Amino acid sequence: MDSIKVFAPATVANVACGFDIFGFAVDSPGDEIIVRKSNLPGVRIKAIVGDEGRLPKEAERNTAGIAIQTYLKHIESDQGLELILHKKMPLGSGLGSSAASAVAGVFAINELLGRPLKQIDLLPFAMEGERLACGSAHADNVAPSLMGGFVVIRSYNPLDIITINTPAQLFATIVHPEIEVNTKDARHILKNEVSMKNTIIQMGNVAGLIAGLMKPDYDLIGRSMVDVIIEPIRAILIPEFSEVKQAALDAGALGCSISGSGPSMFALSRDQPTALRVGNNMQAAFHSVGIGSELYVSGINQEGPKVLG
Amino acid sequence: MDSIKVFAPATVANVACGFDIFGFAVDSPGDEIIVRKSNLPGVRIKAIVGDEGRLPKEAERNTAGIAIQTYLKHIESDQGLELILHKKMPLGSGLGSSAASAVAGVFAINELLGRPLKQIDLLPFAMEGERLACGSAHADNVAPSLMGGFVVIRSYNPLDIITINTPAQLFATIVHPEIEVNTKDARHILKNEVSMKNTIIQMGNVAGLIAGLMKPDYDLIGRSMVDVIIEPIRAILIPEFSEVKQAALDAGALGCSISGSGPSMFALSRDQPTALRVGNNMQAAFHSVGIGSELYVSGINQEGPKVLG
Repeated sequence: MDSIKVFAPATVANVACGFDIFGFAVDSPGDEIIVRKSNLPGVRIKAIVGDEGRLPKEAERNTAGIAIQTYLKHIESDQGLELILHKKMPLGSGLGSSAASAVAGVFAINELLGRPLKQIDLLPFAMEGERLACGSAHADNVAPSLMGGFVVIRSYNPLDIITINTPAQLFATIVHPEIEVNTKDARHILKNEVSMKNTIIQMGNVAGLIAGLMKPDYDLIGRSMVDVIIEPIRAILIPEFSEVKQAALDAGALGCSISGSGPSMFALSRDQPTALRVGNNMQAAFHSVGIGSELYVSGINQEGPKVLG
Repeated sequence: MDSIKVFAPATVANVACGFDIFGFAVDSPGDEIIVRKSNLPGVRIKAIVGDEGRLPKEAERNTAGIAIQTYLKHIESDQGLELILHKKMPLGSGLGSSAASAVAGVFAINELLGRPLKQIDLLPFAMEGERLACGSAHADNVAPSLMGGFVVIRSYNPLDIITINTPAQLFATIVHPEIEVNTKDARHILKNEVSMKNTIIQMGNVAGLIAGLMKPDYDLIGRSMVDVIIEPIRAILIPEFSEVKQAALDAGALGCSISGSGPSMFALSRDQPTALRVGNNMQAAFHSVGIGSELYVSGINQEGPKVLG
């Protein structure tokens, strides 16, 4: 095999109460990468499609490129490679765009070389892509994109990733408003201290969300999708946040919050028709103040990255 | 029925990472109460056995008395009552002694009057007993004593109690060293602020412990029994804390921490023989510095309070 095409899913990180520790993958959108063996040494990005020229083409400045380079170094390979990256989701949207590209990249090269590493062991290389994109090697987008499903990062040091079964009828709605939030900025406005009171409230919701997903208990999932630490701060960066959230709840969503560092917002619902109705209501709320948006409705992606050809 | 005797179980609150939100009940020890109808109005405590004369006998200053009085007021009953309280566990031990008495009291009166209220609806009255004993109406001892099993208090306002199934082979070891810690003091030394870093670590462990119990995954339970917020502060109040904890882990415990606000320490193990060995090792560690202790080894109590006669 000299060439491979791979898809990796977009992800919703934080999932309301689980800042830096929760994330789940969706079936759509996602990024695609083509990785081709080359006789020339080094990793070269031949083309990036769908980024409107905004992403760097130097491999060491690109999340997929750096992830693949770190991987090759680890397995002591000097395989030359050409990459073509198809960005199929908006950049800076809070949907784990950089993570999906990094995961697609390391998954592709590992397949192309005959799977020298297990899938879970690709995580540190994909996280290097995140370090480049966000300034810190967080895993709440990379891990669900790589593993599929709903993921808990129990610990960063050592890295401890737990997958949680989700009910089959649970559907995600994602609405991406046409505004942009820089991930680094979204982290910088956060505080370094949390009150004990809010820590206790947040822990209760973290426990409730995991129990709700595993039992499963849809009402408990909804009651637990409350974030008293991050959402009140980051919501300021999203125009009409409260109205859009209320629109989601009015349409029957279990809960609604910010996807990752935003500006995308997500909701969870107990079936696909509700998730679609929720999305339409959220879009209408943004539209009422002149903000266009993209809508994605999807089940929880259970497989992670996959080979397309 | 003119008289009833009830047992209510001791409880381990916090369970390492879940300050104020986690608790579980044990089969032993526990408190017993006899509640007897009387023609004289009011609630009177006839006797308290096992407290070495340390608990107040005025009903309105006793956790069981106040819980029963609050209950009677709620159902608008002027039933006269006599109480005999058998304290079968050490006071101020971190085993939910005041909670067990309050739960035994409200459960007993509700049975005696033909169950006008559902069991879960007794919680607010038992919590009034806790308010008297601890200065705040926390639920992490009362709820598991009343409901049995492992309990999450997802929210205090409104009160939202979730029960978590635990693996049948999970055994608790409790060692009560013969020293005393005042619950109010143990709360006062805590800080009002938590670093964001520690909040994230703690949330990861909260999620991991719930997932570990529900999967079940014993190793995950153990990895998640880590408390970076409360234990480092309260451990100072317990002589030899680190050595006793290490003794538990050396004997094969999944994890070990402080029970409630201490000074009792608890461990969880994957079977009864291990839990017993863990307890012996913990006692030996206390004994090596001249501290005597009591040992309790028990499964997770699944039934809560029960009628003895």
